[in-house]
Amino acid sequence: MKKDTAVSEEARPLKSRRRFLSEGSALVGGAVAGGLGAKAALAEDAKTASVNGPPNIPEWMKYPGADVGSQLYGTPSPFEKNVIRNVPKGAKQYTSAASRSPLAELDGIITPNGLFYERHHGGIPEIDPAQHRLMIHGLVERPLLFTMDDIRRFPSESRIHFLECSGNPVYTKPYGKTASDLVGLVSCAEWTGVPLKTVLQEAGLKPGAKWVVAEGADAAALTRSIPIEKCLEDAMLVYSQNGERLRPQQGYPLRLLLPGFEGNMNVKWLRRLRVASEPTYSREETSKYTDSMPDGTAREFTFYMEAKSIITRPSGGQQLTKGFHEITGIAWSGHGKIKRVDVSVDDGKTWSEAKLQEPILTRALTRFRLPWQWDGQATVIQSRAIDETGYVQPTFAELLSVRGENSFYHNNAIQPWRIASSGEVTNANS
Amino acid sequence: MKKDTAVSEEARPLKSRRRFLSEGSALVGGAVAGGLGAKAALAEDAKTASVNGPPNIPEWMKYPGADVGSQLYGTPSPFEKNVIRNVPKGAKQYTSAASRSPLAELDGIITPNGLFYERHHGGIPEIDPAQHRLMIHGLVERPLLFTMDDIRRFPSESRIHFLECSGNPVYTKPYGKTASDLVGLVSCAEWTGVPLKTVLQEAGLKPGAKWVVAEGADAAALTRSIPIEKCLEDAMLVYSQNGERLRPQQGYPLRLLLPGFEGNMNVKWLRRLRVASEPTYSREETSKYTDSMPDGTAREFTFYMEAKSIITRPSGGQQLTKGFHEITGIAWSGHGKIKRVDVSVDDGKTWSEAKLQEPILTRALTRFRLPWQWDGQATVIQSRAIDETGYVQPTFAELLSVRGENSFYHNNAIQPWRIASSGEVTNANS
Repeated sequence: MKKDTAVSEEARPLKSRRRFLSEGSALVGGAVAGGLGAKAALAEDAKTASVNGPPNIPEWMKYPGADVGSQLYGTPSPFEKNVIRNVPKGAKQYTSAASRSPLAELDGIITPNGLFYERHHGGIPEIDPAQHRLMIHGLVERPLLFTMDDIRRFPSESRIHFLECSGNPVYTKPYGKTASDLVGLVSCAEWTGVPLKTVLQEAGLKPGAKWVVAEGADAAALTRSIPIEKCLEDAMLVYSQNGERLRPQQGYPLRLLLPGFEGNMNVKWLRRLRVASEPTYSREETSKYTDSMPDGTAREFTFYMEAKSIITRPSGGQQLTKGFHEITGIAWSGHGKIKRVDVSVDDGKTWSEAKLQEPILTRALTRFRLPWQWDGQATVIQSRAIDETGYVQPTFAELLSVRGENSFYHNNAIQPWRIASSGEVTNANS
Repeated sequence: MKKDTAVSEEARPLKSRRRFLSEGSALVGGAVAGGLGAKAALAEDAKTASVNGPPNIPEWMKYPGADVGSQLYGTPSPFEKNVIRNVPKGAKQYTSAASRSPLAELDGIITPNGLFYERHHGGIPEIDPAQHRLMIHGLVERPLLFTMDDIRRFPSESRIHFLECSGNPVYTKPYGKTASDLVGLVSCAEWTGVPLKTVLQEAGLKPGAKWVVAEGADAAALTRSIPIEKCLEDAMLVYSQNGERLRPQQGYPLRLLLPGFEGNMNVKWLRRLRVASEPTYSREETSKYTDSMPDGTAREFTFYMEAKSIITRPSGGQQLTKGFHEITGIAWSGHGKIKRVDVSVDDGKTWSEAKLQEPILTRALTRFRLPWQWDGQATVIQSRAIDETGYVQPTFAELLSVRGENSFYHNNAIQPWRIASSGEVTNANS
């Protein structure tokens, strides 16, 4: 791992805002009115404009627009119809079904509910919330059965956290072309629900209660074992996401949220919590979601997702033009807050510290940004995240040296993007 | 204004979590399986359950659910079809068109884009982003014309802020029945865009530049004058909301964001910024959005929305049952952060400090919560916000004593809810 964080000439933050414009109008005007510069385009428009008046009046100002209430539940502009979830071609339904967030098209840290990544093991059940029940039993003083109305009457909390699939990406090649192909199984939302601790205290834990086995009400009855410490720390029974009720794809009407833990442990369509002295060793914690290590052992129960980051713009599949660009991306860590993100624009020789968007929240996406003038030379750009524990995101080579070739999940390696002199951006790992 | 913040018996935070259950199973079981207690319901289910096994297997676990990718852009569950924007009956299209967020159905502080309130003056234009331009002219060194691609290449920021219409509610009776009817013209999102300061610096301000006149590309060409200080402080040219591109109803492809300023100044479908020495005295800052004062003068250019709060649960139109409830709602101030929210459950005799959800962000919604045991007696509940400037949300009587009867906009009065002994919740102002 390179420790050099010297600021390279290319990556140095621009001191003078004027440089956006003064360097050959690289930013402004380049794409205006068929390549005219900003002033030329303005002058052309001004021919038809009154003094201090507007440029050409666009068609859509000449008649009233759509009525209010024409969308009682709004949808994106028709011009954004290609910003959708990314479903891998040929992926099997049910056991390995997933769709990815279109990361390169997203800004900020909140993922809108319509574009939140999906991962299902038995399809998406359509659950009537009036019929749904959550059962708490096993090593408890009082087994309990809750309706959704019951759950919603408990004291609630709202918190912004990321969720990430543990195979994001898996080690298997090919790695994919875009940020979404590679790392699109991560999203972030404001979750509202009840601290699991509150509900477990209602039930009363018996001596020997060390695990909670959670079961979903999907056709897979997806089952995972969670250490009791996490259940009593920050686990939540979640019913709302970004203000509204959970979407069916995200577990409507109730899911478990284990901030920082691998995605599939955050059991969706949650129907049962069995308090136990031992984990249940379900399919999803034995055959799946464990990593085969070089010494022949299996690395199991690796709950927390390690620190990771990815540059989302510029990223694979995009086309770059010479001149000013803001490099931006997302970073996150299951262990807490992101402390720093470094960006290299010279194939890892030097690194510059990116600016992190405030507020930096624990176990949430953190948006990073770095201004950059691209000189038109071929190069490789990449980011690395450092979290508040001091952990540094590794290169793929570093990860391989520890985990070996048979590991499958939990790939948090640095993702480099190759920029050709033509401006084409591709996956430098391919 | 009452200064007494003594904690009343009813409002005292519950010391023991067990009380949720121990008081006659008021919380758990009351609504389970047709009124059976928690244990009874559990026992009934257990008849068909195996040892340590699940309760009745619901139908939706017996067959695979919907395919991943069946919604490339997700939508809410069909069971949430009534959670939609609230369009006032009989409201005119165009000049006074609005729809309100369903506040009582929302949790947390993020408003999902599909439920964000709307306010239009000439309908919703459908704008092709490739054709859209932003012109900056007037008292500038270099008039500029930007494409959306140009705008997106500038250094960006993301911030969470509320937006609120200045007539939320207007003084005119009837006030409406629900939280949405009354105060539904407020919403909150994470916005991404370019600091307006950056773009104005590119254009170069000439001496005498005191105002920026913003114009929208809708059929109303909605026009507002903004003090230059705000433009250089925290104003933004916004293209994304909650991660994805702005919705058409919120100004796609570009809007102005003036954190804390009244809604209509945050010009949507932004096409023009004219830098000037004087305001333009447009319709929306003379005939509209000014308040007639008792002395016959007009209170104009009242930019900032004052501190406000509302209890969203329990709220008008809901039905309460005896026992434990969490009182929850939202508070906000155009002047900065919310410092405190007090809640009264005894018609204003005593007030208790509610818990504020962290992180508390400047000029953003802040979620407050207070646990409460309702004893079944008729009462009035209400909340009052205090912001970081020390400003205290007034009662409607206090507001009237200053503004008089002819004021129309900028009503930030305390909203009391009457709870009948039947459990019916109604607007105590009606």
